[in-house]
Amino acid sequence: MTSSFASLTEFRSLLQQMPGVDAEAAEAARAHDSQLTKPPGALGRLEDLAVWYRGWRGGERSEINAPQIIVFAGNHGVAARGVSAFPAAVTEQMVLNFQRGGAAINQIARVNGATLDVVPLALDEPTQDFTKAPAMEEAEFVEALRAGWDAVSETADLLVVGEMGIANTTSAAALACALLGGEAAVWVGRGTGVDDDGLALKTQVIAEGVALHRDSGDGLEILRHLGGRELAAMAGAMARARHLRIPVILDGFICCAAALCLERTAAGALDHAVAGHLSAEGGHGRLLEALDKAPLLSLNLRLGEASGAGLAIGVLKAALACHAGMATFAEAGVSDG
Amino acid sequence: MTSSFASLTEFRSLLQQMPGVDAEAAEAARAHDSQLTKPPGALGRLEDLAVWYRGWRGGERSEINAPQIIVFAGNHGVAARGVSAFPAAVTEQMVLNFQRGGAAINQIARVNGATLDVVPLALDEPTQDFTKAPAMEEAEFVEALRAGWDAVSETADLLVVGEMGIANTTSAAALACALLGGEAAVWVGRGTGVDDDGLALKTQVIAEGVALHRDSGDGLEILRHLGGRELAAMAGAMARARHLRIPVILDGFICCAAALCLERTAAGALDHAVAGHLSAEGGHGRLLEALDKAPLLSLNLRLGEASGAGLAIGVLKAALACHAGMATFAEAGVSDG
Repeated sequence: MTSSFASLTEFRSLLQQMPGVDAEAAEAARAHDSQLTKPPGALGRLEDLAVWYRGWRGGERSEINAPQIIVFAGNHGVAARGVSAFPAAVTEQMVLNFQRGGAAINQIARVNGATLDVVPLALDEPTQDFTKAPAMEEAEFVEALRAGWDAVSETADLLVVGEMGIANTTSAAALACALLGGEAAVWVGRGTGVDDDGLALKTQVIAEGVALHRDSGDGLEILRHLGGRELAAMAGAMARARHLRIPVILDGFICCAAALCLERTAAGALDHAVAGHLSAEGGHGRLLEALDKAPLLSLNLRLGEASGAGLAIGVLKAALACHAGMATFAEAGVSDG
Repeated sequence: MTSSFASLTEFRSLLQQMPGVDAEAAEAARAHDSQLTKPPGALGRLEDLAVWYRGWRGGERSEINAPQIIVFAGNHGVAARGVSAFPAAVTEQMVLNFQRGGAAINQIARVNGATLDVVPLALDEPTQDFTKAPAMEEAEFVEALRAGWDAVSETADLLVVGEMGIANTTSAAALACALLGGEAAVWVGRGTGVDDDGLALKTQVIAEGVALHRDSGDGLEILRHLGGRELAAMAGAMARARHLRIPVILDGFICCAAALCLERTAAGALDHAVAGHLSAEGGHGRLLEALDKAPLLSLNLRLGEASGAGLAIGVLKAALACHAGMATFAEAGVSDG
């Protein structure tokens, strides 16, 4: 059980009290790995994943049995500017699709043995258009952060967060641009598939929002001004996972923009996370560089809804299954070179 | 039921009678994909995988329910030259480890819901040292091809083949060098982890074998002269899968060397296969280029035993689960932009 929060100040305070990695557990994991029936290093990134995971979970070796995927959905005032190839009504339509099991993430969750929770956030009250005002008032922002915080299951042993929200690649690009600098054009992408005119408009909208809000404060304030409820909720969920020592797999561009807001508010806030994949959305690679994370997969996805990170669950499960289930050289009677 | 073979001539004949892709099924799959509740192309390579898979399987949409992994094991006369960091006895020790469930591939198979068959091939009779003689007599070679052919389950809906055999990266590098040219040094790698002296010796041994056998004939003859029983068996299994229209995921350097021997004997023989991963073994990327396959994963693995392709099963299962299980825009009542 970890305490919740009632204000932004309290949330900030929780970000300053994050537990660190259990170096002893990580070291024990590395030592165990060196005895497994394979040449040293032959499982490549799977070995590092197992060590990283055990360092965060601590305790005895175990497989991953209870991965949780949460998809947060929100609507964006800036959608009214025409920055998406799809109408804003699609956010709610897709929430119904998630709830009925018809979306990609439903299938990916099932194949990887993960639970899927869908959390719609005040869909009938879009955030403010950030070219005119802060996207969220502080109370709304805190509510969204807390929706994320509260959605994490204390019994999960792995967390993946994803999103649905028409116009949220616009929001994510604005966040990245405000936090990392560069022209809006560097961060903009086609999202669900805008055409060239749409891309030019989207770039303009991002530049307007960044000009208005880039000096509004730290990562959390930038998130409040340029983000959306689903991005805030993802940040809240990732922070909760840290307090519960639940490792996280990051999804694509939007998830990583939310993660960056946390990281810029409290350095090291994403140390309990790995990058699930490199998305086809242009700015994602640069966001991952800023987070200093190398993606596990690169399959040209650009869907969001936790799809890329959901696929990476299988890789992480296999890494821990190898770590927990393989025989040692001594157990198997195999000569170790 | 597909006919087996009693001679190399009969096997060659089967390679000339391979079924092709079902273009109609692939087209139907592409059309279905375009109606699913996601922006066009947003599932990236998963979409292409689903279309490719359905093209080879034909028929109705379905998920992958019966993946089969087969690990073939063989011993190599050339191991006596000291080209591996591990003693030759490890081949048999690892076979026991596979049979008892203690190896990496056992865990990876379990996580991905695959059956695992282990097929040791005359482990007490290593092939000839290919620096002195052809690795296999024709009868031995045909027996190994047929062991692979016969090991494929007719009810599998996906095949992964892997191997165990001390010194078999030496054999694979020699095959690649003989078929694709270049210096032995271009193709050699550290395998299970030889040191610098070992690497120099291994390079020399490969060069000797290639000089002796490079002109011995087509891909199958090169495989007989420089390969090993487990490589021949992998080739036999991949050919059988083609006749059964079972799609294949290729594993690493050694599997791909065996695949190249088939491809060079009958162009297009690997059209029913995708590359599971890019291995850390140096020559693998060039082998994949020669096969014109882009790897699904790149996790710095260099273990063999089907581990990389086994991990990719999860990606392919997810691709087909999305294809078969997602709602269409019409079914879900989602506006399609």
